[in-house]
Amino acid sequence: MTYSELRNQIFQKQSYLCVGLDTDVRKLPRHLLSEPDPVFAFNRAIIDVTADLVVAYKPNIAFYEAQGPRGWESLQKTLAYIPKNCFTIADAKRGDIGNTSGLYARTFFDPEAAGLDFDSVTVAPYMGHDSVMPFLEYSGKWVILLALTSNPGSADFQRQAVNEQELFEIVLETAQNWVGPDSHERLMFVVGATQAAELSRVRELAPKNFLLVPGVGAQGGSLADVSRNGLTSDGGLLVNASRSILYASSGTDFAERARAEAQAMQQEMAIQLSVIS
Amino acid sequence: MTYSELRNQIFQKQSYLCVGLDTDVRKLPRHLLSEPDPVFAFNRAIIDVTADLVVAYKPNIAFYEAQGPRGWESLQKTLAYIPKNCFTIADAKRGDIGNTSGLYARTFFDPEAAGLDFDSVTVAPYMGHDSVMPFLEYSGKWVILLALTSNPGSADFQRQAVNEQELFEIVLETAQNWVGPDSHERLMFVVGATQAAELSRVRELAPKNFLLVPGVGAQGGSLADVSRNGLTSDGGLLVNASRSILYASSGTDFAERARAEAQAMQQEMAIQLSVIS
Repeated sequence: MTYSELRNQIFQKQSYLCVGLDTDVRKLPRHLLSEPDPVFAFNRAIIDVTADLVVAYKPNIAFYEAQGPRGWESLQKTLAYIPKNCFTIADAKRGDIGNTSGLYARTFFDPEAAGLDFDSVTVAPYMGHDSVMPFLEYSGKWVILLALTSNPGSADFQRQAVNEQELFEIVLETAQNWVGPDSHERLMFVVGATQAAELSRVRELAPKNFLLVPGVGAQGGSLADVSRNGLTSDGGLLVNASRSILYASSGTDFAERARAEAQAMQQEMAIQLSVIS
Repeated sequence: MTYSELRNQIFQKQSYLCVGLDTDVRKLPRHLLSEPDPVFAFNRAIIDVTADLVVAYKPNIAFYEAQGPRGWESLQKTLAYIPKNCFTIADAKRGDIGNTSGLYARTFFDPEAAGLDFDSVTVAPYMGHDSVMPFLEYSGKWVILLALTSNPGSADFQRQAVNEQELFEIVLETAQNWVGPDSHERLMFVVGATQAAELSRVRELAPKNFLLVPGVGAQGGSLADVSRNGLTSDGGLLVNASRSILYASSGTDFAERARAEAQAMQQEMAIQLSVIS
C-alpha cells in the first residue's frame, strides 16, 4: 500500500486505528478452543467486526512464534484473511547484519518464501543502516523503525544524551537520511503513546513520516494527547490498540464487545481528524 | 548449560569454536535436495563431523523463518540432534516490551511451546531492561546481548558518544547491573571480530562475561587478534564461524571440507589456550 492510498483510507474511514492481533492462545474465549485453529478463528472474528473501523492490522509475531510451526500457519491464514484495503504490519522488531536482514525481509515480504506478504515490518535500529535497508529492497514495502518505545526500558538507552540530543532523536534523523528526501513514502517510526510529551519533538524531527503509536489503552497513553501532537494534514498516525479490543470480553460476546471498543476509538479519531481538516 | 560446564567443555575440547548453522537452502549441495528435509540433512552432516571440535552451535533463526512452517520443523530437528555437551544459541536478536519478550523467551526456552529448548538467545538492547530480563526468568538459560556488532552499520548508533563513553560501552555496563554481581553466569555479549581494536576495552568493562564473537573468516576478523584481546582464564570466548565452514565446498565432499575448516580453527584455539594456562 502506498502513502497516498494509506492517507485515503484514513480519510475515507475517518480512522487511524490499528488493531494489534496479539492473540494469546491462553486468553481465548473458551468456546473457540474446539475450533481446528482457535487462533485463526479468533482473529477472523475480530477482523470481521473491525475491518470497516480500522486502517491497519498488526500481528505481533512473538504470539505466533510461541506456538511453533502451527503458529506460523495461523499467521499465514490471518494475513490472507485481512481485507486488501487494510495496511498490514509484521510487528517483528527484527534486525541483523545485511544478508541476514535480507532473509527476514524475504520472510515477511516474499509470499514464495514463508507464505507471507505483509506491507511492512517493524525493525530495531541498534545494528544500523545495513540491518535496515535490505527491507526496502522490496518494492512498495515499508520499514517501521523503533524510535521511542512505550515500555519502561525505553529510558535505558533511547533517552541517553548524544551530543545535544537524545539517542531516539539521532535515530529519527539518521534513518530519514538513509532513505532519502521522500523517506515518508517508505519509512515510519514507532513512538509510544506513553511518551506524549516527546511526541511533538518527534513530529518536528519527522514532519511527514507516519508514526505507529502503541501504548494507548492498556499501557495508559491518551488518544487525545497523541492526536494533538502527532496528526499531520495527511493523517500521519497509526494508533495501535491490542488488549483493550481483543480481550474486551472473554465470553461468547467477545466480538461485539471488541467492535464497541474499536468504534469508540474510531469515533474519537473522526473528531480529531475534523480538527485538522 | 552452566558457566562452569561451558568452561570445562572449552578446556576438555581445547576449543571455543561455535558453528553458525546459517543454513541457506539456496546454497545446499545439490545431492541433498532429494532428501525429505534437505536443511536438516545438511545440518546433521555438519554436526556429525564437527561435534568433537566445537563447544557451541548457533542457528541464525532468519534462515529457518524464511522457509515458513517447514523451516521451524527443520530447526526443531536440528536442535534435538545437537549433542547435549554443546551449548546452543538461538541467534534471533529479539527484544520487545516485557510481556512480549516473555513470549519470545517461551518460544526458544520452553519445549512445550514451540518444541525448542535452546540454552541461550541473542537479544537486541534498544528497548532496555524489560525487553531483556524476561529471558532470564527461565532457570539456567542465558541472554547474549548485542553490544558491538560486526557489520558496517555498527558505527551508526553503537559508537555514538554518550557522556565520555560510546553507546556500546553503556550497554555493557548497564546490562551487567541489571543481572547483578554474578552476571557472567547468565549474560554474554556479542562483540564482532571486525572490532578487534575495541575488544580489549570490552574486556575491561566486562572482565568475566563470555563474548560471542562473529565475523572471523568470511567477514574478515582475525582469530589471533580476537583471542589475544578476549580470552580469560575461563576461556570467556565463543568464536563463531558460519559460511567458511558450512560452504567450504558445495560438492559431495562438503562435510569433510567443513571438518577440515573447523579443525584448523580448533587447532589454532588449542595454541591460544595454551598461552593463557
